[in-house]
Amino acid sequence: MTDTFVVVGGDAAGMSAASKGKREAPEMEVVAFERGEWVSYGACGLPYYVKGDVDSLEDLVAVAPEEFREERDVDLRTGHEVTAVDTDARTVTVEPNAAAGGDAATDGGDAVGDGDAAGGNGDSFEQPYDHLLVATGAGAVVPPIDGVDRDGVFTFQTVGAGGAVKEFVESESPAVAGVVGGGYVGLEMAEAFDARGLEVHVFEMLPHVLQPFGADVAEVVEDHLRERGVHLHLNTPVEAIEGEGGRVTGIRTEDSESGETTTVPVDLALVGVGVGPRVDLLEDTAVELGPTGAVATDEYGRTNVADVYAAGDCAEVRNAVTGDPDFVPLALTANRHGRAVGATVAGDPTPVGPVVGSAEVKVFDLEVARTGVVDEEEAREAGFDPVSRTIEEGSRAHYYPGGSPITIEMVGDRGTGRLLGASMVGREGVAQRINTVAAALHSETTVVEFERHDFAYAPPFSPPWDPVLTAAKVLNGALGDAGSEE
Amino acid sequence: MTDTFVVVGGDAAGMSAASKGKREAPEMEVVAFERGEWVSYGACGLPYYVKGDVDSLEDLVAVAPEEFREERDVDLRTGHEVTAVDTDARTVTVEPNAAAGGDAATDGGDAVGDGDAAGGNGDSFEQPYDHLLVATGAGAVVPPIDGVDRDGVFTFQTVGAGGAVKEFVESESPAVAGVVGGGYVGLEMAEAFDARGLEVHVFEMLPHVLQPFGADVAEVVEDHLRERGVHLHLNTPVEAIEGEGGRVTGIRTEDSESGETTTVPVDLALVGVGVGPRVDLLEDTAVELGPTGAVATDEYGRTNVADVYAAGDCAEVRNAVTGDPDFVPLALTANRHGRAVGATVAGDPTPVGPVVGSAEVKVFDLEVARTGVVDEEEAREAGFDPVSRTIEEGSRAHYYPGGSPITIEMVGDRGTGRLLGASMVGREGVAQRINTVAAALHSETTVVEFERHDFAYAPPFSPPWDPVLTAAKVLNGALGDAGSEE
Repeated sequence: MTDTFVVVGGDAAGMSAASKGKREAPEMEVVAFERGEWVSYGACGLPYYVKGDVDSLEDLVAVAPEEFREERDVDLRTGHEVTAVDTDARTVTVEPNAAAGGDAATDGGDAVGDGDAAGGNGDSFEQPYDHLLVATGAGAVVPPIDGVDRDGVFTFQTVGAGGAVKEFVESESPAVAGVVGGGYVGLEMAEAFDARGLEVHVFEMLPHVLQPFGADVAEVVEDHLRERGVHLHLNTPVEAIEGEGGRVTGIRTEDSESGETTTVPVDLALVGVGVGPRVDLLEDTAVELGPTGAVATDEYGRTNVADVYAAGDCAEVRNAVTGDPDFVPLALTANRHGRAVGATVAGDPTPVGPVVGSAEVKVFDLEVARTGVVDEEEAREAGFDPVSRTIEEGSRAHYYPGGSPITIEMVGDRGTGRLLGASMVGREGVAQRINTVAAALHSETTVVEFERHDFAYAPPFSPPWDPVLTAAKVLNGALGDAGSEE
Repeated sequence: MTDTFVVVGGDAAGMSAASKGKREAPEMEVVAFERGEWVSYGACGLPYYVKGDVDSLEDLVAVAPEEFREERDVDLRTGHEVTAVDTDARTVTVEPNAAAGGDAATDGGDAVGDGDAAGGNGDSFEQPYDHLLVATGAGAVVPPIDGVDRDGVFTFQTVGAGGAVKEFVESESPAVAGVVGGGYVGLEMAEAFDARGLEVHVFEMLPHVLQPFGADVAEVVEDHLRERGVHLHLNTPVEAIEGEGGRVTGIRTEDSESGETTTVPVDLALVGVGVGPRVDLLEDTAVELGPTGAVATDEYGRTNVADVYAAGDCAEVRNAVTGDPDFVPLALTANRHGRAVGATVAGDPTPVGPVVGSAEVKVFDLEVARTGVVDEEEAREAGFDPVSRTIEEGSRAHYYPGGSPITIEMVGDRGTGRLLGASMVGREGVAQRINTVAAALHSETTVVEFERHDFAYAPPFSPPWDPVLTAAKVLNGALGDAGSEE
């Protein structure tokens, strides 16, 4: 008797699970349903497609549908939406999807109507499963702002959205772009619009962009954005997206101090205020969500219901620093957790592994990266007594030409001396350097231990004391002082 | 009663110890003796001075003598050579040094006569100590090759050597340089000579350059050197340095296979076949050397004799991967161990910390880096059963422009699954990436654990699975296969 492994969702987590499961257990039937036409694509590359660094949306695809079908022997059904799950009958309801298969640019290119544009045109059917993976991903949060449904207002829900934005930029020649939200996607899109010759305004309701990176690092990013001509509106909630004839014409904001209302004229708006897990499918099932709103999972990606797994951007993960469930919808986690579930389903129980919250983003000429717990309030909530220090160090030996400053905020726990996290920014050497801290977090290293790590040195690449070691040295001094003050 | 802390040697280890000791125990008298005039200099920068990237030798100095004297209150005596140690009387014999203080370019600019050119011109005296740090550093090994004392033949013993090489290049306009030894210094100098317009020949007696990096990485470096026009003579021991009128004219080699003798005409030769610890000073003392020939030390940098410490390039260190004493004469270790000894002497016992053997070098357009145990024979000697895999991965997301391949060899232990080391090479993202492995080695991470590390990802900086994670994944597969074969 042959087991059937059903996968819902055809991006990183789903297709990693399908591929791994089939490879490890070739006798298993593996059926993957994807409501759109795109599978296994790098959504992280969409800003670079709009910017012009990537020529074609097809370039973002890691593995083509035919390869899954023909080489990996996965029964991949694109244009098939799973609309219900019955965990008692162990079946899913599938609707062949009319909208998918059409023009990519219409596939979620607009904030409103995205995701439910599909009207079924085939007969729906029940697909039985022995193992089920829910890998429905995350969707852009659409804030309750008046006018968010106007023409020229975009979110980054899907691959199609990237196509729609680029098409709009090229066909409508907008002169001014408004970016709502100063997170990863917002700042990447600010860079993309700038590269396309648009004047760019970024609106952020918080005091700083890139909230998870902390104020010290964010300020360096903000200075750089301003240097590059981006208009930053911090502490500035967006009240409405104004328009004429259904088309966006401006972004109305309220100054958080004066309460004064201003409208910045724009020809295009990109709303990137975050993403939330897509868990609608599980609404009427016994599958439980966790405290973050994503699907609760154990160390093998199992939900509370037998043989039902969740992985990727719709699932919770355990944060190894806090020990708590976390919602960190990022590409590596999706790939890795999907792969682990595939192995487990195939009979080789494989932990999905915890995260430490590592993330990075390019903002114009800067590399910006973070890992662990940086925010002091978050640290306190996790039971730590955080001490933080920020340093600036050169990226190369002091005498070697071409270096530039790296700013590092590092956080440790006063009680245990444990390293909790770091955030950093600079023109070079940041994106990989953050992972030295990430590795240390996985091993629950103390700041003292980290300061003694033997890191490689050569004049073109760092000072003899690597900037992260200097940060640890300074933080360690502060942890000692803090201790002796008590 | 005030303690006296005597430091022998004014570079990284010695001056770090002196500064830290004085800062932590201001009442302590700190006397540092340096036989030359240069203190606290970045010898690693000498190739870049010759190349022209660094304008002046003074630029290599991290902290000037006046700053030690005036701001840090260290009694620094340059031009003072310590010629004997009496550990019973607790004194050192000091000779004011005539040669030092002269022209920097004559200070060790030649392979022969270096280091003992000094004839005393002042009265020698006995300096009592309560704590003694021997930080005499390492010296270039001068191989027993006929003609190594000719004019135009250089080693990189001292700061002055860098000055002498540059002066020779500028005043004598040599057309062809021969580099004897394909290690760090040899390849950095090959790049420097090439940048100065010289034709460059590199002679290496082993099958590959950069022996500690393993053959797979070395081959990538060798291809690149050839592409850049460097003439590589591998498996080629140098028999003699030929000359006319005392001046170098060629390098005579023997082909290791055919036994045939060839002479490559050169106008300048740089001998860089390695360094050895400078331990002459301790020859007639009770201070013991370790198995590597460097001074044996414990976890606090203490020798076997009470109150006598050793740190930096003359001292052994513990390798955290093998658990054995090791000789790893590099800048960070010297800085860190000196600082730890300074703290310990000042009353705050501070471990020097182990090393994991991290090192890196720029070779033309390549970043080359290694950490841990890469050589399989070395791994076996340390009691491991090594399994090694080499992968090639892109430095950026597959669709992001400008990426280039990174080659990674990773080694694990079949028995325990422990990660033992890695070596890597590429045009970008290597120099910092190696330290993710170094951090994992400090925590005795297994390959499986490392594969599950949550590393930051963004398309400009890596594929979603970082190349080191892919290497771990492949190695992990091999470790599993290896296990199941048994």
